[in-house]
Amino acid sequence: MDFDVDRARRDTPGAHDVAHLDNAGAALPPRQVTDAVVAHLRTEAEVGGYEAAAVAADRLDGTYTAVARLLGCEQDEVALVENATRAWDMAFYAMPFKPGDRILTAHAEYASNVIAFLQMAARAGAVVEVVDDDEHGQLSVTDLCRRLQDGAGRVGLIAMTHVPTHGGLVNPAEEVGAVAREAGVPFLLDACQSVGQLQVDVERIGCDMLSATGRKFLRGPRGTGFLYVRRALLERLEPPFLDLHAATLTAPDRYEMRPDARRFENWESDIAARIGLGVAVDYALEWGMEAIEARVTVLAEALRERLRAVNGVRVHDQGLRRSGIVTFTVDGVSCEDVQRVLRERGVRTTISRARSAQLDMPRRGLAEVVRASVHYYNTEDELDRLVDALPPRRSIQM
Amino acid sequence: MDFDVDRARRDTPGAHDVAHLDNAGAALPPRQVTDAVVAHLRTEAEVGGYEAAAVAADRLDGTYTAVARLLGCEQDEVALVENATRAWDMAFYAMPFKPGDRILTAHAEYASNVIAFLQMAARAGAVVEVVDDDEHGQLSVTDLCRRLQDGAGRVGLIAMTHVPTHGGLVNPAEEVGAVAREAGVPFLLDACQSVGQLQVDVERIGCDMLSATGRKFLRGPRGTGFLYVRRALLERLEPPFLDLHAATLTAPDRYEMRPDARRFENWESDIAARIGLGVAVDYALEWGMEAIEARVTVLAEALRERLRAVNGVRVHDQGLRRSGIVTFTVDGVSCEDVQRVLRERGVRTTISRARSAQLDMPRRGLAEVVRASVHYYNTEDELDRLVDALPPRRSIQM
Repeated sequence: MDFDVDRARRDTPGAHDVAHLDNAGAALPPRQVTDAVVAHLRTEAEVGGYEAAAVAADRLDGTYTAVARLLGCEQDEVALVENATRAWDMAFYAMPFKPGDRILTAHAEYASNVIAFLQMAARAGAVVEVVDDDEHGQLSVTDLCRRLQDGAGRVGLIAMTHVPTHGGLVNPAEEVGAVAREAGVPFLLDACQSVGQLQVDVERIGCDMLSATGRKFLRGPRGTGFLYVRRALLERLEPPFLDLHAATLTAPDRYEMRPDARRFENWESDIAARIGLGVAVDYALEWGMEAIEARVTVLAEALRERLRAVNGVRVHDQGLRRSGIVTFTVDGVSCEDVQRVLRERGVRTTISRARSAQLDMPRRGLAEVVRASVHYYNTEDELDRLVDALPPRRSIQM
Repeated sequence: MDFDVDRARRDTPGAHDVAHLDNAGAALPPRQVTDAVVAHLRTEAEVGGYEAAAVAADRLDGTYTAVARLLGCEQDEVALVENATRAWDMAFYAMPFKPGDRILTAHAEYASNVIAFLQMAARAGAVVEVVDDDEHGQLSVTDLCRRLQDGAGRVGLIAMTHVPTHGGLVNPAEEVGAVAREAGVPFLLDACQSVGQLQVDVERIGCDMLSATGRKFLRGPRGTGFLYVRRALLERLEPPFLDLHAATLTAPDRYEMRPDARRFENWESDIAARIGLGVAVDYALEWGMEAIEARVTVLAEALRERLRAVNGVRVHDQGLRRSGIVTFTVDGVSCEDVQRVLRERGVRTTISRARSAQLDMPRRGLAEVVRASVHYYNTEDELDRLVDALPPRRSIQM
């Protein structure tokens, strides 16, 4: 592998002391990102917020260009918003659901989205349906097709989380995209955990809307996110909120929406963070998403292999294809204890709890799992450090 | 006046070269705010976003405490959100309007809010009514009372901008609050331009909801805002969007909302900016809002007086009581030219255009006005500089 990990680590101030294996929570930013954000904040303090934004107009434009390049879409199909949740919300809540409209989703759906589905069910009479898993634990495309053809009512939306927060699964986005397109049903992909670690191309996937965040695998600032909306759909959607940036008051009683995806934005934003997001995306593109995906995948598989070799450790990742998220438990040891022991040995992991994956973890008998999420700047040594630091299994006391 | 302006200016890196009179756009932050934001960003780069947030938990809590002290409410009535627009949206779009429900507003209402009213009118059949102005150009409390008693249909909401973006007017919030309470109608106050320059106490005003921003008179970071919701109303409102932070999935088909105002927030936020917001609010409270209001009011009146003394200059501020926002035009000179000339002489102003105040400026025959908005760190010398730098009036060529 010719990935220049040393350079990646030199660019990453936080990579030196601790093995940061919480890239699915918030990755460590490269210094280029932090420096760009800080420089803009200092300029704001010197010349004022609006003047600083005017000076940085090209860089701000550059963030749209970078995101469009990353996703393989046009600039005017990109909205920059506060985070992935609000990106997803602006798309989901814009859908004109009618009573009886079905929302098809997967077991691995992020619980936040499920809460929104239920709110929409109560508000508009939509019906939430969870598509079966296949034998690999991913969304069953066969069952999805069956539901699209069963005549049980109009399907208003297919909403799927690409990579769940609580496991290594990668849902079959391209297959779902093909089926959705064939059926003429809008497809909203929550790519919060996939963008930045996997190649995510909206044309290849065929999704109509995609939401993502800056702070996770893209290594951007907190408080950044973006939404892609395919132009053909965009023109038919009215965002759930509108303001002076998203629309113009053309008369005291009439407004007109922007023609581009920025109708999903609002006037004010954290300009410094947006600039940082652009730097982060450009930085990822310099490495190349193909190279990043290859390295992340290899590291994650290497970690799974090492973990499986430890007596009493169970790896819980499902899926035919797997991401940089690795989840496991140690028999007889609570996840909190595992996390604490690892932290004491300089290995930073986190815990995924059933509340984030209510449609999936309980039925699999999982209350919580330790999550170690790798990025390209992590090393094989760090994986060893994790495995060596694991507390010994304990037999369960009856 | 015993306001220590020198100290205020020493704390403000941007105050030295240019007269920053765009505090209604984005004020210059004190170095304490920028330093706090930058320090947190550096910590995030060192230890990761979530770990940094955990370390800063007390400071984050402190931001709620500071905002609650500023507004005279309880901590659990405060939601921290991305900006004033989204704060206002989360309140407004949560209101359960029924067909025919009336929304009462004022002529000086911010155009963003008007767009949202019209969207709600189209979506839910609500009816937008603009209350008359009184002889001072502020919302007429008499006309408001008349409309509340005219039996023409249920009033669902009184929504008023406290201080408009395009003029010196301060709308009579306390009187409106008293009337709203008497009538049992929820009252949403857009305090985007008043918080930080005027004393804004939700008990004294009697509003049920209040939205505000960090970047304007509070001198906080961009990308910050907050929403106050009175506890009694809070419990009856379901936010327009819900996520894992605002609610918990208690079963696959059931969720429960948070009991406090944080149900209007979402999981992810720009933690560094939130910390900066807390520092900015504490900094304002150290000066004291009474002292700040007094100084801003005196400076703004002094500027109006100087401007009125210039031949060909028209001051357009209305209202019995006036804020730190001063608007004017120069006969025969475009606002762009005025702004440009001022900028060349080191005076930073901005332009308010009719698109921001569609219910007010056109009927007053105003297409645009120059806006000079003062803060306590501005000086009388800077006001002189503005007036001295004004381009001479030109007779209009026929």
